[in-house]
Amino acid sequence: MIFQSKEWILSGSSGLDDLQTRTVSTPSLGSFDVLVKMKALSLNHRDVVLALGLYPLPWIKDIVVGSDGAGEVIAIGDQVAHFKKGDRVATTFYQDHASGPLTIEAAQSVLGSLKNGAFRQYAVIPEGGLVKVPESLKWREAASLTCAAVTAWNALFGDRKTVAGDTILVQGTGGVSLFALEFAKAVGATVIAITSSDEKAQLLKSIGAKAVINYTTNPDWGQKVKELSENGEGVDNVLDIAGGKSLLQSLKSVKLGGVITLIGIHDGFNPAEWPSILEVLGHMCSVRAIACGSRAQFEELVKVIDINAIKPVLDQQIFGFDDMKAAYEYLLSKKHIGKVIIDVE
Amino acid sequence: MIFQSKEWILSGSSGLDDLQTRTVSTPSLGSFDVLVKMKALSLNHRDVVLALGLYPLPWIKDIVVGSDGAGEVIAIGDQVAHFKKGDRVATTFYQDHASGPLTIEAAQSVLGSLKNGAFRQYAVIPEGGLVKVPESLKWREAASLTCAAVTAWNALFGDRKTVAGDTILVQGTGGVSLFALEFAKAVGATVIAITSSDEKAQLLKSIGAKAVINYTTNPDWGQKVKELSENGEGVDNVLDIAGGKSLLQSLKSVKLGGVITLIGIHDGFNPAEWPSILEVLGHMCSVRAIACGSRAQFEELVKVIDINAIKPVLDQQIFGFDDMKAAYEYLLSKKHIGKVIIDVE
Repeated sequence: MIFQSKEWILSGSSGLDDLQTRTVSTPSLGSFDVLVKMKALSLNHRDVVLALGLYPLPWIKDIVVGSDGAGEVIAIGDQVAHFKKGDRVATTFYQDHASGPLTIEAAQSVLGSLKNGAFRQYAVIPEGGLVKVPESLKWREAASLTCAAVTAWNALFGDRKTVAGDTILVQGTGGVSLFALEFAKAVGATVIAITSSDEKAQLLKSIGAKAVINYTTNPDWGQKVKELSENGEGVDNVLDIAGGKSLLQSLKSVKLGGVITLIGIHDGFNPAEWPSILEVLGHMCSVRAIACGSRAQFEELVKVIDINAIKPVLDQQIFGFDDMKAAYEYLLSKKHIGKVIIDVE
Repeated sequence: MIFQSKEWILSGSSGLDDLQTRTVSTPSLGSFDVLVKMKALSLNHRDVVLALGLYPLPWIKDIVVGSDGAGEVIAIGDQVAHFKKGDRVATTFYQDHASGPLTIEAAQSVLGSLKNGAFRQYAVIPEGGLVKVPESLKWREAASLTCAAVTAWNALFGDRKTVAGDTILVQGTGGVSLFALEFAKAVGATVIAITSSDEKAQLLKSIGAKAVINYTTNPDWGQKVKELSENGEGVDNVLDIAGGKSLLQSLKSVKLGGVITLIGIHDGFNPAEWPSILEVLGHMCSVRAIACGSRAQFEELVKVIDINAIKPVLDQQIFGFDDMKAAYEYLLSKKHIGKVIIDVE
């Protein structure tokens, strides 16, 4: 069963004009492969960074871009065990990261930079690189999980488990932070958030943040977060998406024995601007770097989404498959709140 | 029951001459107090640092020094539930750190700097600040556990649990490293060690280290450790006692998703010499700072010592109670291998 599939590829990394389309025939199905008709996609900050030439890791020229997509199984190889025709599935970020910590081998299976990604009409994907999506979610919502939801889940449950009574700090209104807010609330944890505007603060409160601090008007927000935490002891886990100098604030906000989870580098990757590791000792905490998570973690969060009726927060503006560049530009403009979604048809 | 008790106090922090003795009457026993006749003591690097005025945390003038001691219960208060006359007990490092992560309150209960310590003939101690020692250990061995063994235990089992098949890196032949080697071997983990001399390498191998690297002749030892680990992937946990520049080597030696446990600062605490936290992200690992551990952890390791017939490594030179300054000088000279012990009588 061969289909003509239009796909978005990256021919260079000098800007969004290097995003181009081409149409290919899908390859024939191997025994363990699944043919997916993509329904909806979501865009990550990483995708934009890659197109702009700022991605710090290797990538392959003319790779099909994007890591996040959901679609319908329309054919399976003769040995496929976990999926059948008609199943609703999503891509995993690392195609070969089944469980446990990331390995060097698994890191080389990342969609959209080293493996052909999700931003296409039809995709042939090994069954190990797919998960069934929550029954309670529509296609657009299902397409938002691959990178952001799994990262949030890994941050909260991948090492120590977040439990009722914990206090979590999330930063901003990006996908990871919003999923983390929802997952943390679902297990009875308290969430404090920082953000840049009153409008975003309202959204964060409406989803369940106990307190929101405007970091633009409170540059020394770390101490404020600590004061707002239980007994003023500091938070149990900071999901840090900024890095750089603002990590000093995260260090001020975390409790003794607490964790700062390193997720992003929005404030840049000049080592001299980052605090030294001596600060970790001085604050008697842990710092844990993560990169998305495993298929097992994705499967865990799918259950929790269904059981707790969690709804991903999607930006109100939806893009068409042919408007891919506009979607990239929109993410780059930082006007979005929640995940930026692209419909495939 | 009042006894005359000779004790070592610190009258200043300008050098070992500030170590002085005095004789006091033990106070009367409160309802939850235990009167202990101290039998043996052990000295930690921290004790020397304190006397030399290099301790970075607060301390109280004329405090009874020392955290580590074992002795016999000779009387108990009328409400004491966990100990009886004749029990063999040891002091806990933090008197009020019962379990879980260290709290600010518990941190203020540390023996030998904020609470009167173990280096005395008789001590009245609340029962919460004592544990029963392993039946299989002699007094000198029992006195070696309070700080070093609990720290090693916390590093290996306080967060993620070290399991069979893990690879652990220990640094040098100090108390924490040797206890960690023994505990890790007891659960089936592989231990790699670095040290400064062939003589110390022999000791490390005799206790069970699979491989030992001389860091004096191999300053770029991080890469070598990685090569020696399973599949060359790096070690699961580095027990880092040095900090500073050598942390770059620890970062090179750790696997993706592995942990560097920050224990000591033997290489100094100038933040500019420590790697930046960006390196934690670059190596996709965790960094966890610890300070000794809880009474619950001490009780866990006591069981494991008895069941696995673990013997603490003691330095061959034993000091008398009146030779306390000589013991401090000996530790300062770095001639010791294993714990430096002081007999009380």
